[in-house]
Amino acid sequence: MARVSQAHLDARRRQILDGAAVCFARNGFHATSMHDVLKEVDLSAGAVYRYFRGKDELIAAIVSETLGQVRTAFEEAAELDPPPAPDVLVASVLGRTLGSRESLTVDGEPAFPRLVVQVWTETLRNDELAVVLREGYCSVRAAWGRIVEAYQEAGMMRKDVPPDHVARTMIAAAVGFITQQSLFGPAPVEVLRDGLRALMSMPQPQPEA
Amino acid sequence: MARVSQAHLDARRRQILDGAAVCFARNGFHATSMHDVLKEVDLSAGAVYRYFRGKDELIAAIVSETLGQVRTAFEEAAELDPPPAPDVLVASVLGRTLGSRESLTVDGEPAFPRLVVQVWTETLRNDELAVVLREGYCSVRAAWGRIVEAYQEAGMMRKDVPPDHVARTMIAAAVGFITQQSLFGPAPVEVLRDGLRALMSMPQPQPEA
Repeated sequence: MARVSQAHLDARRRQILDGAAVCFARNGFHATSMHDVLKEVDLSAGAVYRYFRGKDELIAAIVSETLGQVRTAFEEAAELDPPPAPDVLVASVLGRTLGSRESLTVDGEPAFPRLVVQVWTETLRNDELAVVLREGYCSVRAAWGRIVEAYQEAGMMRKDVPPDHVARTMIAAAVGFITQQSLFGPAPVEVLRDGLRALMSMPQPQPEA
Repeated sequence: MARVSQAHLDARRRQILDGAAVCFARNGFHATSMHDVLKEVDLSAGAVYRYFRGKDELIAAIVSETLGQVRTAFEEAAELDPPPAPDVLVASVLGRTLGSRESLTVDGEPAFPRLVVQVWTETLRNDELAVVLREGYCSVRAAWGRIVEAYQEAGMMRKDVPPDHVARTMIAAAVGFITQQSLFGPAPVEVLRDGLRALMSMPQPQPEA
C-alpha cells in the first residue's frame, strides 16, 4: 500500500471541512446530510468517515478551528507592548478570518457569514455544539481580556471598567458585523474599523464615583 | 353581537404575537406550526386567523414591530441637541427593548435573544422575511446615521468617518451582544455600556491623510 504523506492527509481533511462548511452555510446543519457532504467534496463515504464520524464532529471541528485561529491572533496581539489599538486589531483579525475563507461561497456570496448564523442557531438545540462554541468563545474572550488589561496598564484606556466587559463588547461588534453580512452582503472590514475609530475619538466621559 | 373594543382587539393581537414569539424562539420558525401557536396562545383558529393569515405574517409583524420601536427610540434621540453619548444611548434603547420582552421566556430564559438568532437564520431561506428585516434594519441604520451626524456637527466625533460606518458598528455591537445572550444567558446592558465607554476613553487616533 502506498505511503500517504501527512500533507496529503491534511489537504484531504481541509477539503472535507471546507465542503461541509459550504453545505452547512447553504442549508443549515439540520437539513444537511452526510450524503450532501460526500457529494459536495466528491469523496467516498470511506474516505470521509476516516476523518470524521459524522456531522457533529464536522461542525465541532469547523467551530474549534475558526475560534482557535481567532484566539491565537488575539494572544499574539496581547504579547505586543502596547498591543495594537482596537480598531486596527479587530480589522486585522477579522480581515484574516474572512479572507482565508473567501473561496468558500454559496450562490456566489461568501459562505462564512451564513455559516456563523447557522452555527449560532444550531447551538440553541445542540448541547454538544453549544459546549464547543462556549469553550472557544470563552478562550477568545479571555485573550481579549488580556489585551484590555494591557491597554489599561499602558494608560491607553480608563481603568474603572472590567476588562471582560470590553472584551464582550469588542467580540459583539465583530460577531454582529459578520451577521450583518449574511443579510446585506459582503462589506469591507474598514467599515467596522472606521466605526470603532470614530467611537475612540469621542470626548472621554467622566468616570463615575 | 357584542361590540368589541379596540383595547380588546389590541390585547388579543398582543397575546397572539407574544405566543408566536415564544414558539419561534423555542423551536425556530420552520419547525413551528400554526397549530403550535394556537396551543401556546390557547385561542381558536378562527380567533387567530382573524388577525394573521399564517406564520409568515406573524414573523413579519414581530420583526416590524421590534425594529419600529428601536427606530423610534433612535429618531427621538436624534432630535436632542446634542444627542446622548453612544454608551448611554445604546444601553437605554437596548435596555428598553429587552425589558419590554422580559416576560417572554423559554425554559426560564429570556426568549428575545433566541428569537433574534432564529429570525436571522430564517432570513437566509425566506426572501420575504429578508425584505422585511432589511427594510427595518435600514431604517434603524438611517436613524443612527443622523445621530452620528449630530455628534460630528457638535464636535463630539471626528468628521472624517462616514456616519453610516459608525451606524453599522453601533448596530453590530448591539446585535452581537443580544446574540451572546442566547448562548451565555442574560447579561445586564451595563456590560455593553461599559465596553463602549472604555473604548471612548482611548486616545484619539490621528486622522489619516
